Amino acid sequence: MFYLTIDILGTIAFAISGVLVAMDKKLDLFGVFIIAFVTAVGGGTLRDMLIGNTPVAWMQDSIYTFTILGAVIFAILLQERLRYLRKSLFLFDTIGIGLYTMVGIDKGLQAELIPIMCIALGTITACFGGVIRDILCNEIPVIFRKEIYATACILGGGSYFLLTRLPIIDEYSFVASIIVVIGIRLLAVKYKIALPNIYRNKSA
Amino acid sequence: MFYLTIDILGTIAFAISGVLVAMDKKLDLFGVFIIAFVTAVGGGTLRDMLIGNTPVAWMQDSIYTFTILGAVIFAILLQERLRYLRKSLFLFDTIGIGLYTMVGIDKGLQAELIPIMCIALGTITACFGGVIRDILCNEIPVIFRKEIYATACILGGGSYFLLTRLPIIDEYSFVASIIVVIGIRLLAVKYKIALPNIYRNKSA
Amino acid sequence: MFYLTIDILGTIAFAISGVLVAMDKKLDLFGVFIIAFVTAVGGGTLRDMLIGNTPVAWMQDSIYTFTILGAVIFAILLQERLRYLRKSLFLFDTIGIGLYTMVGIDKGLQAELIPIMCIALGTITACFGGVIRDILCNEIPVIFRKEIYATACILGGGSYFLLTRLPIIDEYSFVASIIVVIGIRLLAVKYKIALPNIYRNKSA
Repeated sequence: MFYLTIDILGTIAFAISGVLVAMDKKLDLFGVFIIAFVTAVGGGTLRDMLIGNTPVAWMQDSIYTFTILGAVIFAILLQERLRYLRKSLFLFDTIGIGLYTMVGIDKGLQAELIPIMCIALGTITACFGGVIRDILCNEIPVIFRKEIYATACILGGGSYFLLTRLPIIDEYSFVASIIVVIGIRLLAVKYKIALPNIYRNKSA
Repeated sequence: MFYLTIDILGTIAFAISGVLVAMDKKLDLFGVFIIAFVTAVGGGTLRDMLIGNTPVAWMQDSIYTFTILGAVIFAILLQERLRYLRKSLFLFDTIGIGLYTMVGIDKGLQAELIPIMCIALGTITACFGGVIRDILCNEIPVIFRKEIYATACILGGGSYFLLTRLPIIDEYSFVASIIVVIGIRLLAVKYKIALPNIYRNKSA
Repeated sequence: MFYLTIDILGTIAFAISGVLVAMDKKLDLFGVFIIAFVTAVGGGTLRDMLIGNTPVAWMQDSIYTFTILGAVIFAILLQERLRYLRKSLFLFDTIGIGLYTMVGIDKGLQAELIPIMCIALGTITACFGGVIRDILCNEIPVIFRKEIYATACILGGGSYFLLTRLPIIDEYSFVASIIVVIGIRLLAVKYKIALPNIYRNKSA
């Protein structure tokens, strides 16, 4: 129940972030819905297609579709005020990537993949909805350009596999790793931590 | 036979619409062929990957590949005159989305999905070839921005599931729903009906 | 062993070509890695999803991930000198598409597809990593715009199916076809051979 609540909150946050990008591009109602939809379920869809877990997850449970539909209607009705909700949305989004990362890792374990591939699946689940959103809106994906985002997922996923080597109940490791993702992401934004600059030419 | 004829006409229309977009971008012969190809089969390919119906449809029957190849050659040879065929192309395209919608719904039923997911699959089959075409050509997908297009597919698909609740032979419901898609699309274009505007700020 | 060596060299060349494009776009470290990754494995990933060969190849063998990681670190450290390596990179890339084409054809044969679909799979394996790289970087894919690239894969793939009709050991046909891809690509670049122009309007 707790798990589902967080999952739905993450879906809402991702969907609304899709609505915001789509409305910036002046898409029509259908376009806004599709962008919200792919932002929320695109990462999990790519994950399921990569491991052959088909029909993909959102086709097997209509709760995601209806949640996204509700979030889109809510976001369109409250469009002037959405900017004020930015902080809540950021929090939902951050919780969302924490949970989505671990959902992806769980699917990787079920598919009997090695840890590094599970971490890749977790990161894809959490981050690639946003990547597909940006591609559909004709932008270079924002997570390729700034801040610790995917990196939080990778580190959180890595900490899960470290924790499972210790004598800790698996559920605790799972929850702790979600907290690691969320913590890294929050700290990175609060202290403006970015990935190390890789460009040597300063004029660039 | 009738079914196949319409399917091939739809493939031709989609392929030629791909050629037109690709030639506007000055792509080379290979680029034009690929854009024509993904426009015609991209929606069905995404559908098949989402439900795990692999190898995807176009790999199992080469008639699509050869039809598209023929359409591309035809379109390149007659490039100056294609603009005059605009009306016929629009009609083929409209028939195409009607049929593709119901093909997608049929695949969803075979995969034992619930009606709303079948409608989603139908809409993906009909519309996402054009979406992939636009992404490959570095444009925001046109169906996210204007007119009733996907909406016609959704309403036509919905009408199929309403009709199947009535004591009507399934084939009739199937054909009637194709006609609903086509009718809504034609009426929307003729009377310039668009989705309701969702933007409150008039200066936008 | 020889096969693996060439495969790894191809992966390195594709990964470095991804780094070069990503650095032109000023992506951050994560972005550069992802672009390198999709350039190297994107074609094979799409191929595996199209035929349902899941989990996709790179998830089943971590050598690709580590090779790409090494190539990215190497490329970032040596960024000023990479331009001088352009000729070696071109050679690796050319060998890479030759080998990737035949790897894709081999997978198509295993999936019992007809020759034309095997050739399509081979071409997808060799070329679509670069297509996904360009889409993620918000460019029209370069292979749709210039030079003989995919065409070399198609002709090399076609020559394989011609050779298998002759009384030749399969391994020889396989290697000969790799050489055909490489040869056509090298000749096309050396003699600036391009696909025939399809545009009649000279002012365009």
